[in-house]
Formats: sequence, structure tokens, C-alpha cells
Amino acid sequence: MNKHHYLAIMAGGVGSRFWPESRTNHPKQFIDILGIGKSLIRMTYERYLPIIPKENIYIVTNELYRDLVKKHIPEISDNQILCEPSRNNTAPSVAYTTWKLHALDPKSSFIMASSDHLILNEDKLRSNMLKALDFVEKHDSLVTLAIEPSRPDTGYGYIQYESTNIDGVHKVKKFVEKPDSTTAENYVQSGEYLWNSGMFVWKTSDLITAFQKYNREIFDIFELGKSFYNTNKEDQFIQEFYPKTPSISIDYAILEHATNVYTIPSEFGWSDLGTWASMFSEVEKDENGNLLKCDKKIILDTNNSLVRAGDNKLVVIKGLDNYIVVDNDDILLIYPMKDEQEIKKVTNDVQNKYGINYI
Amino acid sequence: MNKHHYLAIMAGGVGSRFWPESRTNHPKQFIDILGIGKSLIRMTYERYLPIIPKENIYIVTNELYRDLVKKHIPEISDNQILCEPSRNNTAPSVAYTTWKLHALDPKSSFIMASSDHLILNEDKLRSNMLKALDFVEKHDSLVTLAIEPSRPDTGYGYIQYESTNIDGVHKVKKFVEKPDSTTAENYVQSGEYLWNSGMFVWKTSDLITAFQKYNREIFDIFELGKSFYNTNKEDQFIQEFYPKTPSISIDYAILEHATNVYTIPSEFGWSDLGTWASMFSEVEKDENGNLLKCDKKIILDTNNSLVRAGDNKLVVIKGLDNYIVVDNDDILLIYPMKDEQEIKKVTNDVQNKYGINYI
Repeated sequence: MNKHHYLAIMAGGVGSRFWPESRTNHPKQFIDILGIGKSLIRMTYERYLPIIPKENIYIVTNELYRDLVKKHIPEISDNQILCEPSRNNTAPSVAYTTWKLHALDPKSSFIMASSDHLILNEDKLRSNMLKALDFVEKHDSLVTLAIEPSRPDTGYGYIQYESTNIDGVHKVKKFVEKPDSTTAENYVQSGEYLWNSGMFVWKTSDLITAFQKYNREIFDIFELGKSFYNTNKEDQFIQEFYPKTPSISIDYAILEHATNVYTIPSEFGWSDLGTWASMFSEVEKDENGNLLKCDKKIILDTNNSLVRAGDNKLVVIKGLDNYIVVDNDDILLIYPMKDEQEIKKVTNDVQNKYGINYI
Repeated sequence: MNKHHYLAIMAGGVGSRFWPESRTNHPKQFIDILGIGKSLIRMTYERYLPIIPKENIYIVTNELYRDLVKKHIPEISDNQILCEPSRNNTAPSVAYTTWKLHALDPKSSFIMASSDHLILNEDKLRSNMLKALDFVEKHDSLVTLAIEPSRPDTGYGYIQYESTNIDGVHKVKKFVEKPDSTTAENYVQSGEYLWNSGMFVWKTSDLITAFQKYNREIFDIFELGKSFYNTNKEDQFIQEFYPKTPSISIDYAILEHATNVYTIPSEFGWSDLGTWASMFSEVEKDENGNLLKCDKKIILDTNNSLVRAGDNKLVVIKGLDNYIVVDNDDILLIYPMKDEQEIKKVTNDVQNKYGINYI
């Protein structure tokens, strides 16, 4: 393994559409969403151990989740957890990671990966990541691993890329926002578009150059802390200055402007597990099409449904079709799978009616 | 109030079809099934206070429920709780009550009432009960308050009665078992049949005579304890001899044989609240036909359904029609209302699979 290779796992989000399993104080990445005995963040961590030295794996999260990160990845040291004191979108997260790793190791390159995605073919992912790490070492470039679209999904941003390539690495033409369904179909049929998965590979030095060029405001703030990263002054600096950064995505701050963005079109069984239904569609179901994550149960005439409950709860259900049933200590959700996009709105109603303890 | 009038509230049953709300260690009569802030046994107790001296109200229950009785009716003294050491059907319960009350007061008569029924018109009930008490004082007779049938229900036993009467009290022709639906329709159309509600009024002296005549085995056992009732030896006697009584219903042991059985055809909004659906049919629902006994809730597109959950649970439901949803600490039931007769069978399956803690 190359000691200049790093991994930053982004773990600051909430994943509110997995409510009531995901909660502000216990977000999606810390949940065993698939019911296999491991949280998504733990799966992400283990996925990269074969290619990244474990002391080079960093978690970027929110102050609120520091203890949860330690619980799920006890192997990690305090210095490997970057805590954002405020939620300012992805560009400041990337910048913080970049400056911190660059201060540690000026030759560092890093993979940026989400903590809450599903990868079915991990070997393929790792080989693509190694290819990307190799590419960014040789070329001053920013690489995104984008996904070969399997359907005209309107829930993702798309990336248009050039067909010419260097060893399977293609130049990116442009980033586009989530399309309407006709546009999405055209994108997929053209063969020129990929899904933007939010997985990136880059050298810290190239990113610093890019921030300097395309977002001077962020550059100035993080440059100011140069001598503090990885010292006992880092925390205080971040507490004070991080909240002053503009809230902006890395796509919008850098990638849509930079001219050295490349992509590796990838196909490794990726899902962002954005909602109960998208998770449900990815995993193996039983002979009735159900995913039953509950220990004690009597389930009759029930099909295509997801049922989750704690191990001490006995669940007796009859006659549901295409339903989500989630039973927590303090919340019971019984919702049609087809309407699950509404759950985000429901959580707003819940907050208005019953306060933040339930969301 | 007449000091020779007593009330025995029968409270030994389990009511398994209200599972999972009713449990072996917390049966139906101790539950606020209607969601009005009072358990059924408490409602029964209060219902008779206007006509029966409170020191004359006795509870016949199982050893297991002694503490629950005290909790729900703290006004009651230890001597007013009769605990059966075994479940031997109704005849031994009636006999125990009879001998105990007769030892206290040879002139006693008593109402026998279930602890878990619903009465909508309590004034009417009380006036019928007083009429029955008056009748049994004047005539050596056993009176049952039977219900004018409002539908050809196949879930009840029926009583055929004579049209001639003394002040509204009719002689009973015969008791019949639960009929099939054609027979039930004939019964209802004939106008000669009533539902057997299990409410009785009788003198203890007449009952002792009846046991002596029609069930010598029970008579001999309780006669043996004559000098022990209402003394500190009663408990020991009952512990030893009660389990030796035959397990037989009062209908089968006495009423089907006795020639002095009378009835008052009654109409006071009675329901035995035998199941979730029968309870549901009796009570007032909201504008969507729902009965929502849960504090915190967001209920969408849901109709004709019963939802019960603890006050600390937030319930979010969409799209159920004609369902029963009951959420307890350790059990979640989601079941079609139309299939609720199956719940008793389900509890057997639960016991086989997960043991008695869940039933």
C-alpha cells in the first residue's frame, strides 16, 4: 500500500428519509440499514482497508457524531476524526480535509467517499480507485468515479464525458443538475452521461490550487490555519473559522469550473441508499419479496414489504402489500412503499407537532 | 339500598382475543379497552354503586390477579376478593361465592356480573337488576338477564323463553348452545329467543338447594367448608378443595336442569366486548371511522381502523383501511379487522414459537 494514499469518509449527514430509523442524533450511516450486522460506516471503513493504510483513513463528520464514530470504528485515533462545528455543505468539508492532510503529507492524495452508500462489487470499486489514484499522481487532475446509469433516474446529477480516454480515464465535459425524466432518458440513450456518485480522487496539492483559483474565500480561510492542523490548536481554529466558510457544494465551488476534471465510468453495483425504497430495491428479499429485519415475527399474507423492529419486539402482521413498517422504541411508522418520498415531509410535520426529539 | 343485596363481579378470565393488549398477566378486565381512562373492571364496580352497598361488592378472580384487583378497586377489603386457585369454569366460581355469602348472611341474594362487558344504558341495567332482586326475594327462582338480540349472532348461546310473564319476568323454556347462522336467523325471527349474557340474580339459599339437587359433587365440596368461610381458615380450605371441583359451567351444571329459571328480556346496550371488532362496533369513532387511542400521531388516508399505542410512542400511519394496529412495549400487531377471529389462533402460534411471555 502507498503511504501517500488517504481516505476521507464523509459522515456528517442525517439521511432523513430513513426516518424513523435515522434520527438527528443517530443518522443513517450509523445504522445497520441492510440488517447484516454492520452499520454502513463500518462497511465503508472495512471496504477500503485492503488498499488504504488504516492510519490514513479519516472520518469527516459533525461534532454531534464524534462518539458514534468512535463506537463504530474503535480502531481510529482522535486525530483521524474531523469534526465540523457547522453544516456548510461539501466544499468546506473537502477543504478542511485537504489542508489537514496536506499539512501532514504534502504528497498526499485522497479518496473522498460517502459513509452511507452501498457497493455490491467491492473488488471492482477498489481497482477503479487504485486506477484513479495512479492517474492523479501522474496528472494534475481531479477525478470523479461516476456511475454507468442503469435507468433514467431523475434523483441524481449527471456528468457528461468525452469518449476519448487515457487508460479508461475520460475528460469530463460538464456537470448537470438533476434532470426531468425526458432529459434523463435522452442522457441515458446518448451514452455520454454518467451518474454523479460523489466519489472523488485527487491530490491535496491539486485541490489547494483549485480552491485558490475558483473559491478564494474558502482558500483564504483554510490557508489561515496552515500551522494549526494536526496540532492541539486545530480544534480551536476550526471552531472559530469553519462556521465562517460559505455553504457551497464541491461541485459548484470547484468541479463545474475546473478544466482538469476527469472521470472513470464505473459499474460496481453502487447505490446511494437514498431512501427506504432505493435500499429495498437493491437487496435480496425472501420468497414473498419481503425484507424482514426483526427477530420474532409471525408474518401472514404480506408481500413486497420491509419490516424492521428491535430484537425484543414480537411483530405480528397480516395482509400488507408494498409497505414499510419500522418500529422503534418511540416511533411506529406504517407507510406505503410507493409514497415513501413523502416521509421527508412527514418528518417536518412531526417536528412541528411534537418537536425535534422525534426527528 | 337493601343490605341483603350483594354483587359478585367475575374477573378471572383472560380475554385472549384482545391480544396483545390483554395478556395472561394483565387480562382484558384490567385494561382501559375503550380508551376513556378507566378499566372495564373499574367501570363495572362503579356501575353498581348506586344500588349495591359498597361493602357488599365482591370480586371473584384468580390468585394471579389479586394485586391487580386491589390496584383497580382500592376501596375493597381483602375479604371481598375471592381468589380461585385453579380455573374450573363458572359453576365452582358461583358455588364458592354462594357458600361464602350465605355464611355471612343467610338472607343474601346476589347479582353475578362479568367484569369485562360494556353497558351503554346503565340506568336501565340497574332498574332491571332491582326488578330481578325483588323477584328472587319473592319467588324461589334463578333469574338470568338475557339480551333482546339485535342480529343473528352465532357467537352467543341463546335462551328460549315463554311469552307469559309476571311483571316482565318470564319463565325460561330452555338454554341452547351457539347456533349456526340459519338457526340463529330463525331464533331472531321467532321472537322467542334471547342472548345469554351471563348476568344472573339469585338468592344464595336457592342456589345451595339447586347445587344439592343438580350437582352433588360441587355441593359436597363447598358444604364441607361451611365453618371456614370468612374466617382465617377460608384460604387454606379453598387452596386445598377448590381444585378438586369439576370444571363445568353454571349453565350446564344447574341452569339447563333447574325448573325455576326465569329471565328478564333486556335491552340496555350490552356488549360482551369479546373481540377487538365487537368493541370497535360499539364505540363512537372519529369522522374517518377510526378509533385512535394514541397520544402522538400522524394518521393519513386511514379509515375504519383501530390504533392503540402508548403515550410515549409517536405513530405515523398512511393508507390502512379496516385494520387493527396495537403497539405494546414488546408486541406490535397489524391485523385486518375482518380477520380478527384468527387472533386467538395467532396467540397459540406465538406461544408455540416464542413462549408464554408473549401471551
